[in-house]
Amino acid sequence: MNQPTLASLATELGVSRQTVSNVLNFPDRVRPATRAHVLEAIERSGYRPSAAARALRSQRAMALGLRLSQRRNGISGTIVDGFMHALVQRADQRGYRIVLFPAATNDEEVDKLIELRRSLAIDACILTDTWYGDTRPAELAEEGVPFASFGRPWDGVDHGRWADVDGRAGAREATNHLRGLGHRRIGFIGWADGSPVGSDRRAGWVEALGLDPAGADALTVEGDDSVLAGAQGMAELLGRGADAAVCASDTLSLGAFTETRRRDRGDVRLVGFDDTPISRTLGLDSIRQPVEEVAAEVLDMVLAQLADPETRFEGRLVRPSLVTHERPDFLAT
Amino acid sequence: MNQPTLASLATELGVSRQTVSNVLNFPDRVRPATRAHVLEAIERSGYRPSAAARALRSQRAMALGLRLSQRRNGISGTIVDGFMHALVQRADQRGYRIVLFPAATNDEEVDKLIELRRSLAIDACILTDTWYGDTRPAELAEEGVPFASFGRPWDGVDHGRWADVDGRAGAREATNHLRGLGHRRIGFIGWADGSPVGSDRRAGWVEALGLDPAGADALTVEGDDSVLAGAQGMAELLGRGADAAVCASDTLSLGAFTETRRRDRGDVRLVGFDDTPISRTLGLDSIRQPVEEVAAEVLDMVLAQLADPETRFEGRLVRPSLVTHERPDFLAT
Repeated sequence: MNQPTLASLATELGVSRQTVSNVLNFPDRVRPATRAHVLEAIERSGYRPSAAARALRSQRAMALGLRLSQRRNGISGTIVDGFMHALVQRADQRGYRIVLFPAATNDEEVDKLIELRRSLAIDACILTDTWYGDTRPAELAEEGVPFASFGRPWDGVDHGRWADVDGRAGAREATNHLRGLGHRRIGFIGWADGSPVGSDRRAGWVEALGLDPAGADALTVEGDDSVLAGAQGMAELLGRGADAAVCASDTLSLGAFTETRRRDRGDVRLVGFDDTPISRTLGLDSIRQPVEEVAAEVLDMVLAQLADPETRFEGRLVRPSLVTHERPDFLAT
Repeated sequence: MNQPTLASLATELGVSRQTVSNVLNFPDRVRPATRAHVLEAIERSGYRPSAAARALRSQRAMALGLRLSQRRNGISGTIVDGFMHALVQRADQRGYRIVLFPAATNDEEVDKLIELRRSLAIDACILTDTWYGDTRPAELAEEGVPFASFGRPWDGVDHGRWADVDGRAGAREATNHLRGLGHRRIGFIGWADGSPVGSDRRAGWVEALGLDPAGADALTVEGDDSVLAGAQGMAELLGRGADAAVCASDTLSLGAFTETRRRDRGDVRLVGFDDTPISRTLGLDSIRQPVEEVAAEVLDMVLAQLADPETRFEGRLVRPSLVTHERPDFLAT
């Protein structure tokens, strides 16, 4: 690799190495005329200042940090992967790369982001998987690390630097779809982990049915995010007279589906979340999350902060949509 | 962010700014005694040289480039995503980050990698999705960009800087598994795109059955990688008297499964590739690719090149394994 260096450039340009270095790293120390002359000569020479030199000079890495989301069961995990794909594509169109790293905890994530930013390896970052009591936004703001988040702050200060999917609206739509098909006792199969996303989805189901708390509890079952929990939850709901269910995920919906098949209850309809390959294959209806739109929003937000750190933001709720599928032949009976 | 700068450090240390800068960027220009003194003082001060300064000094970015694989159907696409997850985790343990970027073509990928390397944004790169006539290895070698590849060179020079899954051995194992269960006319459902991975898998099936070319053709069907093609292929194979099939992917196996269900041919067994969530859910047997092992191998290879650019390598074939699943209750009938 015979790339020009500061030294070879200086020789070529007939100026001191220090002058070239100063033009790149401390341009305010060089007289404007000299600076213009050297920059022009540098450009003519075909020399491309390294990203490292450019980062030192401009304090811009042209890169955004993103924690690799934990690899989950491969069903709902596709949502965060889908978001990441969309973000990488969008960022590239704006000249930014995505720097991926793992972290076992939120604290480790914040530490790594601060270090990456301090060392000019990234300019800003994108958060995902927000939760109650999430201290990451405050910590990053205090350290001056620009950020935007896929996921709203579920409590505390609303920093406005977020875009999220309106799961409540999605669950309302799922419920109304089932009502429109004539179902009258529509249950909810959710997560027992108290997750804000799960609670939000359940709230949409409650709203659509106009249930009081006791009525809602009577038609709710909760467990972990597994096929087995979905099957058990459906069995429980059928025992309580449910004739349909909104599920917090396609994993649960798949489990619920296995139970309706086992009991030969083809009349029981389900709607899950995430429009995964599995639900498409089995012909299960689902709520699709527009991750491309979320990626575009959060990217706009971090780039706006880089342009003007004082920019104020308002969070953006993006509406998901119901996707219905035909039941495939092989499950027709 | 009140981080120390070269200037504030120089003031603090009572040396010229230029000396500090030289120690970081051109250490060979500074007398060893001075260099040691300044470095020690820098360390004591708690100053952490920025990644950019460090990259300029050491020519190391501590980052590896990886093209974001095209988002495919979400079934087989999980393999490359799984590899990426494993790579990010492993690289982190060695102090490296992954820089993700998209590319529409191999040429664009190579251009971006060369630019990223030239600008010290990455030290090396990982390739995926190798194909016949793949010019990326030669181009990167010529530009001095260290690389290793998930996927062998299917023709041309064997650069040895690769690890790959032995799909042929996997298909042999799948076929022998079906033979062991008593099947005698085992077909192959593959891809019509002439892909090297697909041909390799078919070769394993041919080997296990000891077929001559005509016999192999008689039991082979090929199409695109879709559920529909799998169903059509299975219908065709059943017409030719097949009683089982090895499928080049779980997508095809799923399609084939829908056809056996439709015809009530529960006696026909299938083995697919990739052990996807769908095959696990439907209880379909599959060949699992050990992407974690591949990630570890290619990471070792690029780090060895960074330590010694003259290192010679031999490609590593990693053996996949058959994973069998119980047929779930809901498909029992």
